[in-house]
Amino acid sequence: MKNDFMLSTKTAQVLYHTIAADLPMIDYHCHLSAKEIYEDRRFQNITKLWLEGDHYKWRLMRSFGVEEKYITGEANDKEKFFKWVEALETAIGNPLYHWSHLELQNYFGFDSIICRENSESIWNLCSKKLAREDFTARNLILRSGVEVICTTDDPADTLEWHKKLRESDFAVKVLPSFRPDKALGIEKADFTAYLEKLGHITSFASLKEVLKARLDYFVSLGCKVSDHGLAAVPFAPAEEAKIEAIFQKRLKGILPTAPEEQKFKTALLLFLGREYAARDMVMQLHFGVMRDINTRVYEALGADAGIDAIGDAVSMKDLAAFLNALEKTGELPKTILYSLNGNDNAALMSVIGAFQGGGVKGKVQLGSAWWFQDHESGMRAQLKALAAQGHLATFVGMLTDSRSFLSYARHEYFRRILCDVIGTWVEEGKYPDDERLLNTIIRGICYENAKKYFGF
Amino acid sequence: MKNDFMLSTKTAQVLYHTIAADLPMIDYHCHLSAKEIYEDRRFQNITKLWLEGDHYKWRLMRSFGVEEKYITGEANDKEKFFKWVEALETAIGNPLYHWSHLELQNYFGFDSIICRENSESIWNLCSKKLAREDFTARNLILRSGVEVICTTDDPADTLEWHKKLRESDFAVKVLPSFRPDKALGIEKADFTAYLEKLGHITSFASLKEVLKARLDYFVSLGCKVSDHGLAAVPFAPAEEAKIEAIFQKRLKGILPTAPEEQKFKTALLLFLGREYAARDMVMQLHFGVMRDINTRVYEALGADAGIDAIGDAVSMKDLAAFLNALEKTGELPKTILYSLNGNDNAALMSVIGAFQGGGVKGKVQLGSAWWFQDHESGMRAQLKALAAQGHLATFVGMLTDSRSFLSYARHEYFRRILCDVIGTWVEEGKYPDDERLLNTIIRGICYENAKKYFGF
Amino acid sequence: MKNDFMLSTKTAQVLYHTIAADLPMIDYHCHLSAKEIYEDRRFQNITKLWLEGDHYKWRLMRSFGVEEKYITGEANDKEKFFKWVEALETAIGNPLYHWSHLELQNYFGFDSIICRENSESIWNLCSKKLAREDFTARNLILRSGVEVICTTDDPADTLEWHKKLRESDFAVKVLPSFRPDKALGIEKADFTAYLEKLGHITSFASLKEVLKARLDYFVSLGCKVSDHGLAAVPFAPAEEAKIEAIFQKRLKGILPTAPEEQKFKTALLLFLGREYAARDMVMQLHFGVMRDINTRVYEALGADAGIDAIGDAVSMKDLAAFLNALEKTGELPKTILYSLNGNDNAALMSVIGAFQGGGVKGKVQLGSAWWFQDHESGMRAQLKALAAQGHLATFVGMLTDSRSFLSYARHEYFRRILCDVIGTWVEEGKYPDDERLLNTIIRGICYENAKKYFGF
Repeated sequence: MKNDFMLSTKTAQVLYHTIAADLPMIDYHCHLSAKEIYEDRRFQNITKLWLEGDHYKWRLMRSFGVEEKYITGEANDKEKFFKWVEALETAIGNPLYHWSHLELQNYFGFDSIICRENSESIWNLCSKKLAREDFTARNLILRSGVEVICTTDDPADTLEWHKKLRESDFAVKVLPSFRPDKALGIEKADFTAYLEKLGHITSFASLKEVLKARLDYFVSLGCKVSDHGLAAVPFAPAEEAKIEAIFQKRLKGILPTAPEEQKFKTALLLFLGREYAARDMVMQLHFGVMRDINTRVYEALGADAGIDAIGDAVSMKDLAAFLNALEKTGELPKTILYSLNGNDNAALMSVIGAFQGGGVKGKVQLGSAWWFQDHESGMRAQLKALAAQGHLATFVGMLTDSRSFLSYARHEYFRRILCDVIGTWVEEGKYPDDERLLNTIIRGICYENAKKYFGF
Repeated sequence: MKNDFMLSTKTAQVLYHTIAADLPMIDYHCHLSAKEIYEDRRFQNITKLWLEGDHYKWRLMRSFGVEEKYITGEANDKEKFFKWVEALETAIGNPLYHWSHLELQNYFGFDSIICRENSESIWNLCSKKLAREDFTARNLILRSGVEVICTTDDPADTLEWHKKLRESDFAVKVLPSFRPDKALGIEKADFTAYLEKLGHITSFASLKEVLKARLDYFVSLGCKVSDHGLAAVPFAPAEEAKIEAIFQKRLKGILPTAPEEQKFKTALLLFLGREYAARDMVMQLHFGVMRDINTRVYEALGADAGIDAIGDAVSMKDLAAFLNALEKTGELPKTILYSLNGNDNAALMSVIGAFQGGGVKGKVQLGSAWWFQDHESGMRAQLKALAAQGHLATFVGMLTDSRSFLSYARHEYFRRILCDVIGTWVEEGKYPDDERLLNTIIRGICYENAKKYFGF
Repeated sequence: MKNDFMLSTKTAQVLYHTIAADLPMIDYHCHLSAKEIYEDRRFQNITKLWLEGDHYKWRLMRSFGVEEKYITGEANDKEKFFKWVEALETAIGNPLYHWSHLELQNYFGFDSIICRENSESIWNLCSKKLAREDFTARNLILRSGVEVICTTDDPADTLEWHKKLRESDFAVKVLPSFRPDKALGIEKADFTAYLEKLGHITSFASLKEVLKARLDYFVSLGCKVSDHGLAAVPFAPAEEAKIEAIFQKRLKGILPTAPEEQKFKTALLLFLGREYAARDMVMQLHFGVMRDINTRVYEALGADAGIDAIGDAVSMKDLAAFLNALEKTGELPKTILYSLNGNDNAALMSVIGAFQGGGVKGKVQLGSAWWFQDHESGMRAQLKALAAQGHLATFVGMLTDSRSFLSYARHEYFRRILCDVIGTWVEEGKYPDDERLLNTIIRGICYENAKKYFGF
């Protein structure tokens, strides 16, 4: 990866190197472990850092015909790494190819290509560096220029590690995010067990009270953002009494019918939306996923094993009705919408445009190219869809959505692509080469918009 | 915007400047007011011309966090314009950025950039020019090189302004289009009130007779084209007696069920399709919209307030069955299909290809990139989808679909993009640099195809 | 078409000319007639070769306003060819424009442009060459460098021509493919008549036994691959007894309900999937089509008349559940998924990624850009979707899916586009210019992967 990787025009290069490259990072949504950050985890070798929990990489290896033994199985770390390199070396056009090179280059100073001839030397280089003091979790974060990290946390979480981090001397803000998926999961077998963990809950009304209290607790520790993982945004409004009846039935162990499930989820999500608005929090809605579609792998490895996929079309009508229900009473919080399917970009932008307002720049946002879209063409498509129907300069930009301490390279990847898109437009005469304006746009998207929008 | 704006290759530049630029314009679908044209409306300032009714611009301002007061509220025109400039100056990648520059350049001779430093001077320049005799509605149309304008009119309209225009010395043909959305709107509360306005209607049979008479009247004033705004193309065939029963129920004030609504719409739309065919008229079907999804804004501002969006997927099966029902008896009129969702391009082209024939070039057409698709990448995608599965050289080209007298800049925008697409293919060796052939293609799409297809 | 047609960078040119151009072709899915190959069919003129059965060309002619008489009607061959040239000469951006030029250039040595001025000379050139000994079916195949051809055959087919070809001295492997669409067509009027043709079938159980026997027979003649044309991949599991009851009802002449149809198809397709897996065969699933949507043309010309189209969205949930049902028991065969709608690329890749494994490179494949996607941008989109979420280097590459002996030009078209995509990535610094790696990737996709994957 050369210095001008992804930067195809002179203007793109100037924008990236003089504006974007050195801005701090705000990672407003990730899956890092506050515990690992607090304890300043160390990694024995590159396999631990790269392959331990990364289902993106597992999928690529499986696609390449690598046997499971070398992916999640009993092979040793070095064997696994070698197999990974064999799969990666010809993975042309896959974002893992770029990310892996950027990560090795940025963190380990490796600047050749990842290929089987170099497996041994990469293994050794990484092992050597990882043995050093400055390759711990915290040091990796610090050297990435990160200013804020928002982890993803269950309402029932004690947030003990977040509290300890606040009291520590770690210069980076590590804030919790409120992710109440389990509280919405009324159709799941373990729902009532979860409720017991969450608090003393005997009714839908008391569930809401408990969640409010947890929300206040999260906010007291700096939480600014919530997150929801949904198959689709539900919209099946019902009377409070009906919801209470569904909930009482569930407490007695009776699973809801599909319409009841939708009613319950609609009610709880609307309630939460209002609570987020009251606290000036941001609501993130992630939707369009089918989870765990391969039973054989799920039974062997559990969730997050690389067996999720893009689901069937999500109803824009329900989404619009859901947003409208909050907007009608002036209780729509700042909201970020992420569909797993890039085909939804245009429709989402059209819905988003109908709910802007209230003097907030980009109050409703099209989320950054997410998961299966998180690659060069997905990012370009997201930026162009946002620009074509909305106001690109209000975009809150990139997040890692990652479990790895090296994933900040994805911010660099994003910034390079952003500068390339914008620089190319400038060179094509589609936007003026005006320093003030370009500076405003790039600084905004890479850093300032997020800071202001979330209120960090 | 330089002379070669959007024209990235030498061939593109030659095609545009020597062929496309000076061809007359045929605006076969717009929302201009015949009354304003007849009365030769004047505009006090640029806000009146630009911001008064343009919900595209309102959306961009809201997205940028401008308060409603400065958009549709009580702020004065100058304040509104200044806020508009603040929103626009960083609206990189949005078509409004390009259109606004083209409009100021073409009509007002402004050739710098629109930014807050220039707000005052733009305001003054425009106010000064708008005070001149040659900046009236008619003059704006004339200087744009427009040959035909098709407005959008309700069957109940008296077309008095069209008649007056016919009798006037205005050199541009201003023709009515037949848009019977209200006659199809059986599910609407004001349906029966509308019927009373339309004529003496006591049955479905008499509704059809009245519509035929209105159609003949429209045709007598030069009407060549109809237009329908639909959520989706309906297809629920039913016996005539069933339709009559649904209609009689509605006359008694009973709203139809959803299936009844579909049956009624199918029957009436098929009837109209046949009537269009009998008159050699073009049928335009616009579909895929959700309207007025934000209740708060709708209650404050009514329809066309920037709160519409792309709806859920439209059934290609129903569309195909609808077209087939007309085709079967040889009564499919020339038809243009517009989906609000660009994702439908490929499927629409595949359906379109199955209903071509009868010796008409491009009898069934994929409509120009519409509304939320009306931007650079939307236009490119439409052209490429049309070319890949159909015959691009038969395309009837651009329309404004606009309420503004400056929107002819969109024809220029389209022509530049068209020449860029084609010029680039030529330079890449994908089509020969043959003068006759290229001339035929470009002249056809920009002007001649529409003239012939609509029969102007 | 110049030497470097579609090859926009130096690297693309080198990759194509030094690696891709001369590799043998494996055409693992086409609709050629084994009989015509065996009998070494001759063609009297270019109309016979080009226009006789090619509904792609018919559609283009209809779109251009050519009357049916000159397409499928009584006009003579020369008239038809002249009309075809008139339609083609301005068909910019349509793949037929490129394919036709490549075919005339490669097989007839014509290297000017196809336009009305050249109609006469092209007609004469082709007639002259087609009279030669070396322009028969077999010679056209041989000079294309084809190594394997998989035809598409009904289970009831005797495969007599395949047997004769095996015994002949023809150097190219012509293998049957198993396409049991009619055996799945329980909703069709001619289902029971078909069953009688297939064998002695008195029950669902005996249908399965007969199909197994036919499958063994096909395999004995070299069959490595099956093929299914489906509206959508069904998933409605039911007890065996239920399926038997549906089948018995059908034998008595009672058509199934829609849910019964889905249950039957699910059961039979799962059964066949397991049988393919047991024989290490590849299962091809083609879905997303609406057939014969124009009744008028269908009644005049029958099926395959250019009146098919892309249907409504196919359920990814059902597809995933179907694959999972096979995978669960370790009986998922190597599978290739083709959707007629390119919008499905990303979702399909996400599903595919969840079912890879078992040590097979690209066990589940995203099929080559199919039918209405078989053009430059469709191919580029398919390659990029595959690369972004999967492992492009495992792709089994192109097929012709054609009824014509000249369609091998489509392999050339594909290879040029492939080399252009990859060469451009290399020149943009997105992949290293490494000879071993690029050689592996290009050779694999053009030839070696298919050879290995199918086991030819």
